[in-house]
Amino acid sequence: MRNFTSVHDVKDPVSLIREGISLKINPWGNVHLGKNKTLGLIFLNPSLRTRLSSQKAGQLLGMNTIVMNMDKEGWALEWTDGAIMNTNKTEHIKDAAMVLSLYCDIIGMRCFPTLTDREADYSEHVMKQLIKYSTVPVVSLESAILHPLQSLADGMSIFEKWNKSKKPKVVLTWAPHVKALPQAVSNSFSEWMQAIDVDFVITHPKGYELAPSFTKEVQIKYEQEEALKGADFVYVKNWSAYEPYGQMPPVEKDWLLSEKKMKVTNGAYIMHCLPVRRNVELPDELLDGKRNLTPLQAENRLYAATVVLKRILENTKS
Amino acid sequence: MRNFTSVHDVKDPVSLIREGISLKINPWGNVHLGKNKTLGLIFLNPSLRTRLSSQKAGQLLGMNTIVMNMDKEGWALEWTDGAIMNTNKTEHIKDAAMVLSLYCDIIGMRCFPTLTDREADYSEHVMKQLIKYSTVPVVSLESAILHPLQSLADGMSIFEKWNKSKKPKVVLTWAPHVKALPQAVSNSFSEWMQAIDVDFVITHPKGYELAPSFTKEVQIKYEQEEALKGADFVYVKNWSAYEPYGQMPPVEKDWLLSEKKMKVTNGAYIMHCLPVRRNVELPDELLDGKRNLTPLQAENRLYAATVVLKRILENTKS
Amino acid sequence: MRNFTSVHDVKDPVSLIREGISLKINPWGNVHLGKNKTLGLIFLNPSLRTRLSSQKAGQLLGMNTIVMNMDKEGWALEWTDGAIMNTNKTEHIKDAAMVLSLYCDIIGMRCFPTLTDREADYSEHVMKQLIKYSTVPVVSLESAILHPLQSLADGMSIFEKWNKSKKPKVVLTWAPHVKALPQAVSNSFSEWMQAIDVDFVITHPKGYELAPSFTKEVQIKYEQEEALKGADFVYVKNWSAYEPYGQMPPVEKDWLLSEKKMKVTNGAYIMHCLPVRRNVELPDELLDGKRNLTPLQAENRLYAATVVLKRILENTKS
Repeated sequence: MRNFTSVHDVKDPVSLIREGISLKINPWGNVHLGKNKTLGLIFLNPSLRTRLSSQKAGQLLGMNTIVMNMDKEGWALEWTDGAIMNTNKTEHIKDAAMVLSLYCDIIGMRCFPTLTDREADYSEHVMKQLIKYSTVPVVSLESAILHPLQSLADGMSIFEKWNKSKKPKVVLTWAPHVKALPQAVSNSFSEWMQAIDVDFVITHPKGYELAPSFTKEVQIKYEQEEALKGADFVYVKNWSAYEPYGQMPPVEKDWLLSEKKMKVTNGAYIMHCLPVRRNVELPDELLDGKRNLTPLQAENRLYAATVVLKRILENTKS
Repeated sequence: MRNFTSVHDVKDPVSLIREGISLKINPWGNVHLGKNKTLGLIFLNPSLRTRLSSQKAGQLLGMNTIVMNMDKEGWALEWTDGAIMNTNKTEHIKDAAMVLSLYCDIIGMRCFPTLTDREADYSEHVMKQLIKYSTVPVVSLESAILHPLQSLADGMSIFEKWNKSKKPKVVLTWAPHVKALPQAVSNSFSEWMQAIDVDFVITHPKGYELAPSFTKEVQIKYEQEEALKGADFVYVKNWSAYEPYGQMPPVEKDWLLSEKKMKVTNGAYIMHCLPVRRNVELPDELLDGKRNLTPLQAENRLYAATVVLKRILENTKS
Repeated sequence: MRNFTSVHDVKDPVSLIREGISLKINPWGNVHLGKNKTLGLIFLNPSLRTRLSSQKAGQLLGMNTIVMNMDKEGWALEWTDGAIMNTNKTEHIKDAAMVLSLYCDIIGMRCFPTLTDREADYSEHVMKQLIKYSTVPVVSLESAILHPLQSLADGMSIFEKWNKSKKPKVVLTWAPHVKALPQAVSNSFSEWMQAIDVDFVITHPKGYELAPSFTKEVQIKYEQEEALKGADFVYVKNWSAYEPYGQMPPVEKDWLLSEKKMKVTNGAYIMHCLPVRRNVELPDELLDGKRNLTPLQAENRLYAATVVLKRILENTKS
């Protein structure tokens, strides 16, 4: 693996999920792999889980890690080729990526969407410019439209909890929120669920359809209750509309899950990428209950980052 | 020791002080103790000494250290159980503490008081919520009402400088300042001085009484000069009023120390936790003089943090 | 070497340049030199290359590195001796430097000029106060008027690219910009070029004369084309006026370089310290061309920092 920015960078997603899980047996077992290698983590946006799990993953692999809040500690970046840089942007990604590549062996970057310029966001302009101008591997720590480390951790969590021969039914349900959120986690989860062998359903209010390219053959249901029937895993997530982009069309029905609503499921696990707005996106009664899978997902974020970095380090060596 | 948030977490404060001092002989002698352990340092407020001494203490113990400015780099935290999170708070401490516990073996946190909500501050709501929801040990890097690492370093400094058989006289004196400061350093110093064998006196203007729970059997004097008589150590610190909470009632007399005022002491050492407003809280003539103990206190901050982390690591192992 | 703040701290600049280049053969060869030593990096201003290359240099030498954005994470510093600290400055450099010296074995600091108070800037007041009150060696990560790590890297880059017996002609040319920039890179480059054996020329519009102390015996030409003739290296850099200080007097002619303008040179290499405003300071056609030396300069920033830290560590030991 050279870069890790989506499921399409992974030859065999199931094998990656299984290797990620296997790392939990001996977390420090690969501490010699990253000796004298530097991991550069570039943040254009806030982060807790990603920041900590990536740093810790670097430590598990014996790497030196440098964290940089580019917007606060460095220079405002210009992302457009050929720009006449007479505004407030101080350094071009072409030059910044060249420099980062000189000091780092792997670069991770987090960049959120504009939620106003759909074309720019969905072209992955920012992440692609970094990859274009870096001479070292790049790992997405969440891009404008994808969050593959989260989805990998989600896949690991489902695999760990499922040991029946039949496929699990996995439902991604839209949840209420107070502000417009990116579609990255949902797009990415949809991609990964299609890449592994599960029965996958998405449910959301009309007007909240995800980008068609991410939901091609996925069943979409506008009735939450119908979607939840017989579910084994329920992934809860808010996202803003794809059309009109970044907006929050009014929703009439009550989309907040509850223990009562969960009764139609097959005793399903509750999943969420965190951070979660308690009692807005998910009620305490579910987050504090026994079927809450978010701690396992958060734990797996560490091993997702570790297995991705491990694969890249192995590839660099060979 | 499981957590370190006040003198009450320590079975034998004198033994801890003595062990802290003993670490100075061979600072790197315990570098294998924290191997493959991660120290997470969470800052909700600015810090210089605490930030650097805690990071360095982690290094002395061979730990991997991750520093996180939660307010700037992560998410705004909700601290109230059962909250409907529809304001600007993005993540609940319940979930954040769970996640931090997954990636870190020990968590340190700094959180300042509101200085407006006395009940919340004096309940140690924020620190207690972190402890409640963490599954790993927690170290206070200064809380709303206490600063135990500072007090431990202060105790070490007094022990190092005192080799007479009689008890030293230690005076905590209020000092002027331009803005309302927390009571944490003063509360904490009072607790620790009561826990070790010294003759302890507090002096401050009327209206600046500390919380009664921290000064139970301590002599309080409103006349600074009288308090200073025969002092061996003079701890200088500003704090805002406990009642009316966080206010700065007017002070008529001149409370700024001077060489002249110090003449009634027993050639006392000057102590301060730093940062200090020179010529407002303490004059240059004292801070630049030979009896200034603040460099020793600052040096001992390092070994205070080291001995606390060492004790917790040892406890975790057994 | 005790401190590194200008070329005058270096006995033999050519020897330092050559040793810096020699480190590239075996970057990790000195990893035992900094064992159990701590490098403190203090930033009062933004930084990308300096931040990353200094951290990585610390790693190459096996040092523990602590990065501190003093303005954002710590306390606002007072730099003036004797100040009555009743404004917004919370800690005096006298106390902060004492504390930093307790936890760190070497301190690096970046501090930009005011561009309004020429006397303060050109006295190097801020850097000198740090040195005055530190008890450990200090490395400039760019000061108000000098950027010696950049100049050392620039010297290394010229040495690596020049293998003829005759002296190279090195031209420093002023370039347009949208805002007033410090003179530090230009002053420093001028100092270093005078200290090594090159034919050095500065060209800039009238009104942009650098401080006389930095250009004593240097040829100044107001005609860019004339200066460029036969150049082997062209260093491109904007700076604001020394008189009236920090201002941007209007410039009539077009000072932006181009391939066409470069034709009078001896196929010269293009140099710039970065960050560069593309198509304002330098056009894409030159930055994306084969004679662009900025990647080598950025790479050499790492070895410049490493050789300086190495020399200081060696000096500390003996």
